[in-house]
Amino acid sequence: MSKLSGFPEYLPAQRNAELAVLDHLRRVFELHGFANIETRAVETMDQLTRKGEIDKEVYVLRRLHAADDEGDAGMGLHFDLTVPFARYVLENAGHLTFPFRRYQIQKVWRGERPQQGRFREFTQADIDIVGEGTLPFHFDVEVARVMAEALSGLPVPELTLQVSNRKVLEGFYRGLGIADPTAVMQVVDKLDKLPADKVAGLLREQGLSDDQAAQCLALADIRTTDTSFVEQVRALGVEHPMLDEGLEELAAVVGAGEQVQGVVVTADLRIARGLDYYTGTVFETRMAGYESLGSICSGGRYDQLASDGKRTFPGVGISLGVSRLLAPLFADGMTASRSVPSAVLVALVTEDSRPVSDAVAQQLRARGIPAEVAATAQKFGKQIRYAERRGIPFVWFPPAEGEDGHEVKDIRTGDQQAADPAAWEPPASDLRPQVVVTKEKQQ
Amino acid sequence: MSKLSGFPEYLPAQRNAELAVLDHLRRVFELHGFANIETRAVETMDQLTRKGEIDKEVYVLRRLHAADDEGDAGMGLHFDLTVPFARYVLENAGHLTFPFRRYQIQKVWRGERPQQGRFREFTQADIDIVGEGTLPFHFDVEVARVMAEALSGLPVPELTLQVSNRKVLEGFYRGLGIADPTAVMQVVDKLDKLPADKVAGLLREQGLSDDQAAQCLALADIRTTDTSFVEQVRALGVEHPMLDEGLEELAAVVGAGEQVQGVVVTADLRIARGLDYYTGTVFETRMAGYESLGSICSGGRYDQLASDGKRTFPGVGISLGVSRLLAPLFADGMTASRSVPSAVLVALVTEDSRPVSDAVAQQLRARGIPAEVAATAQKFGKQIRYAERRGIPFVWFPPAEGEDGHEVKDIRTGDQQAADPAAWEPPASDLRPQVVVTKEKQQ
Repeated sequence: MSKLSGFPEYLPAQRNAELAVLDHLRRVFELHGFANIETRAVETMDQLTRKGEIDKEVYVLRRLHAADDEGDAGMGLHFDLTVPFARYVLENAGHLTFPFRRYQIQKVWRGERPQQGRFREFTQADIDIVGEGTLPFHFDVEVARVMAEALSGLPVPELTLQVSNRKVLEGFYRGLGIADPTAVMQVVDKLDKLPADKVAGLLREQGLSDDQAAQCLALADIRTTDTSFVEQVRALGVEHPMLDEGLEELAAVVGAGEQVQGVVVTADLRIARGLDYYTGTVFETRMAGYESLGSICSGGRYDQLASDGKRTFPGVGISLGVSRLLAPLFADGMTASRSVPSAVLVALVTEDSRPVSDAVAQQLRARGIPAEVAATAQKFGKQIRYAERRGIPFVWFPPAEGEDGHEVKDIRTGDQQAADPAAWEPPASDLRPQVVVTKEKQQ
Repeated sequence: MSKLSGFPEYLPAQRNAELAVLDHLRRVFELHGFANIETRAVETMDQLTRKGEIDKEVYVLRRLHAADDEGDAGMGLHFDLTVPFARYVLENAGHLTFPFRRYQIQKVWRGERPQQGRFREFTQADIDIVGEGTLPFHFDVEVARVMAEALSGLPVPELTLQVSNRKVLEGFYRGLGIADPTAVMQVVDKLDKLPADKVAGLLREQGLSDDQAAQCLALADIRTTDTSFVEQVRALGVEHPMLDEGLEELAAVVGAGEQVQGVVVTADLRIARGLDYYTGTVFETRMAGYESLGSICSGGRYDQLASDGKRTFPGVGISLGVSRLLAPLFADGMTASRSVPSAVLVALVTEDSRPVSDAVAQQLRARGIPAEVAATAQKFGKQIRYAERRGIPFVWFPPAEGEDGHEVKDIRTGDQQAADPAAWEPPASDLRPQVVVTKEKQQ
């Protein structure tokens, strides 16, 4: 009985913490009018291998009882939520209203080799806004603000949403007289892994002059938490209409991000995103103390999310790697305050008085208070330990036969009070499991 | 671009209806202290083919880029939530607290042939309580009551939870002097498909006398919505200690069910459940007008959910086929009142005044009211139609430049009123999408 590597499974308390995170994300997305969809786990191999991404590690399906000549089922598990969403939009375009805001929180799968220790199953939370034919730029601002708001409410270390814009980079490179901006972007993207002088060398190999290479590196060095990056770029003295457009767009996104408390939104001109379907705004996200994870929340503007030849559907979106974010935090002690939803354990005086305890629990549930009744009529001390082991904060004592008066005990403080099952309320913070950190991260 | 048969996908409005159902289920399960877990989508082929269920249609996985000699990944997609739960309990027994109440709402997959028109991907919602070594009978009553409560709040046609008990059947058959009660149960189970006289013939082929066969059929005919079935069984004059025990248990479950409004709980002595791991209470559920679906919610008591040789884990559980329940209702016109979460569309006076509309939307969201801002500053008539197409009930009009005073219009009634963005609340029933039926079921 060995666990399968790459397929994380959580104990109930950790799952409660994950649920708290997912509930928060859903709440923010829905407050902003994003509709939920769920797509099937499988796509045809056709869909999965489009866009030249045939190097993706896909799990292909075969029926166990397939006839000998039947072969694979022609389907594989999706490796992201973008391919399925693009297919869904095309398939249902006649029934959707555009611009279409959607969020999607689902598992995705990658057929990685077992030994790599990478996730083979993980949860993503994506938001996208897609238009039919056109999609005004203000939706880029909206997507950034909504994800920033969602991230800002998470019980995790400080997150930095790094924003850039391909038009800034491409316009700047063109303004410098560079013929192949995409090739330069791919080289500059290596600044994460290589020192600046090595990258400068690679740029010169691309045919750039010393000055052009230096300018490219100077641009990549600009990073501000407000719109002052515009001046810094202007100070480099490069001119191009596409650069102007990109700077205006990026300033709008970063300016809107300044209003969101609890998450740092920066203009970061090193960010280019490798995937070449992005055409304007691009996003990445880093978590303080967990930089080695890379970006845990990425996306951008793509002028062609989907197309059926007649119509095109431009979009802007961002995808949060929920498992990628939570797995290392769980490893470092994040969990929930309890392993069960129950805020109250109703004690049993005797097995015969179970209906009395059941009735108390039902009265609490009717007011939205999760409650369970003790499994057996052990001594009260044992019933309290039963609650303790699960993290249940309150134990309710119904009256013994012939007595009257209910009492409720906060088992964390020992405080015990008379209480009315028809009226008592726990503090709001005890109603649901809370996310807690049980030990400090090992530095 | 053809849809894949057997993999249902919903439009946003239907998904909203499904979410309302899933949220309700989760709420009831959590109020009763059931902890959520999620297991990985895959199990080892070992696990999937245990218990002799090798006839199950499983999807086996293979890595697309597997080396030639690598073959299948040794894993398949789970076909139910019981096999994964049993594995999870064994794997994590040292970290769980027993009795362990859990609910699990996940997709499952069956590698059915495409042409059969059956689901190949669908959602199940399972609750189980599992003990270590022993599990007192009162948990059977609890599981029945919790699922009955969950079912009773669903916006679906009348549901009948049919309860029986294998001890009643086996005890009765033994009391009649029948040597192989299991074989008789399997024959009596055919009453769904065969007329009574054919079943009587099959029973006689098993070696039963005319009288024994008649008694078996008389027992299977008993069906009561209260505990009066006990008398009816007694009136047949059969005696056996196991029968006594079974009748007492079944009376307790049905008696508890009488307290739940909105779902019919019946003792139904025809129900035996084919799977032979059930040892006591068994459940099935029928929906009025949709009897051809068969049972949409089934389960029972199994004295050995899991075992590792040293320890055994008895359980009692019940599994609701969410897709099985909803797909035919969606086909018959069930949907949600809107396709988006937004309760309010904030209109745009001009594109330049977008910050004003954004600010109104943020004020509404701060009070938990989902809101979106119009995509473009079209004429108000067009903005109202934008809301109408999505089913958004309210359109908010900020003041034009130089004017003051906000107004909000209920676009269903045309009623328009002055409103304060810092205080206005929609009726509670408009806050979230509601489940509605857009046309009557075709009889």
